[in-house]
Amino acid sequence: MAKHAPPETRRAQILDAAMACFAERGYHETSIDEIAARAGLSKGAIYHHFAGKRDILIGLFEVWSAQLIRRWETISRESDPLEALLLDAEATFASVEDLLPLSRGAVELLSHAARDDQMRGRVADLYTASRNHISALLSDAQRRGLIGEIEPDSVATALMAMFEGLFVMKAMDPEGVDIAAVWKSGVSAVLAGLVATRKKGVTS
Amino acid sequence: MAKHAPPETRRAQILDAAMACFAERGYHETSIDEIAARAGLSKGAIYHHFAGKRDILIGLFEVWSAQLIRRWETISRESDPLEALLLDAEATFASVEDLLPLSRGAVELLSHAARDDQMRGRVADLYTASRNHISALLSDAQRRGLIGEIEPDSVATALMAMFEGLFVMKAMDPEGVDIAAVWKSGVSAVLAGLVATRKKGVTS
Repeated sequence: MAKHAPPETRRAQILDAAMACFAERGYHETSIDEIAARAGLSKGAIYHHFAGKRDILIGLFEVWSAQLIRRWETISRESDPLEALLLDAEATFASVEDLLPLSRGAVELLSHAARDDQMRGRVADLYTASRNHISALLSDAQRRGLIGEIEPDSVATALMAMFEGLFVMKAMDPEGVDIAAVWKSGVSAVLAGLVATRKKGVTS
Repeated sequence: MAKHAPPETRRAQILDAAMACFAERGYHETSIDEIAARAGLSKGAIYHHFAGKRDILIGLFEVWSAQLIRRWETISRESDPLEALLLDAEATFASVEDLLPLSRGAVELLSHAARDDQMRGRVADLYTASRNHISALLSDAQRRGLIGEIEPDSVATALMAMFEGLFVMKAMDPEGVDIAAVWKSGVSAVLAGLVATRKKGVTS
């Protein structure tokens, strides 16, 4: 092992190891010892980079958030706004598949966040960034006449809520929730509804 | 105080007192002593009916679930299926307003449930009951030609996810989420989309 790897490399290495452990054994069953062994590092090295397991979970959340926002920005540059919405949904859905092993851990993170203003602030910041992005796409689609009179912020929040809710429901009821089927039906229903608002405006 | 009130009356009295305390001070800040004082009962009387604060929270969840399902059944008997869906959404939304003081507590309940098979089973049972109810309305609407080719179970789960997600997002970001605006926009967009599937089928 390179002893003098840059801190960012080391952090990424620990996060990868933690993700693998969480996926295999679940967040609550995984110890810092196991993460250290998987990363090929000492327990002390883990604590040099992270305050503890909760801090590692926050780190995974931040990496995931940053990737999601980067992917959205790339998609927006390359597609018209309704296509971008659909591609965003697909990208987000794909990232959920990656996160499923963490879903119970993520509900735990939300629960911590509900009582911890700093953590709640991070989650709220991601919500704000997501809402601004989706809302801008919807406003753009309205300007181009692709969809009719809807309130962009509210519809953006509704789309986000569908995602957040699916993730929570999957954690509670893994057998009852087929994320792929639901996400596609839900998103296509909402997009069909948005397009219908335009058609209604044109024909009535 | 009636010393010999039936157990169900006593439980309801404790749940009402707990709800009032949680609403004022939050779930985590409320003690069993405060609930006892509010209910006009001894601490021992509380522990006679509930194992602790977590058990009281589960009790509130069960009362809320049962009320919700009863309301849905009444609505279904009185309305056509698309009207019933909209009225269900309104009834559910109204119940969220009641529950908002508990939203952080509810995220906590989900977090406990993620690690507790018995609690997770109760949440999953409510999901199943909700999905069956909404899915039956959607199938009925399809039979009557009100909506087109959608997969009832998936769309039902998508609607439920929107509700669940809104509730979680409200707990994380109280200022950023206007539940009334979002729920109406989201539900009307989905319903417009469902109706649009029929129109598309007719015209193409």
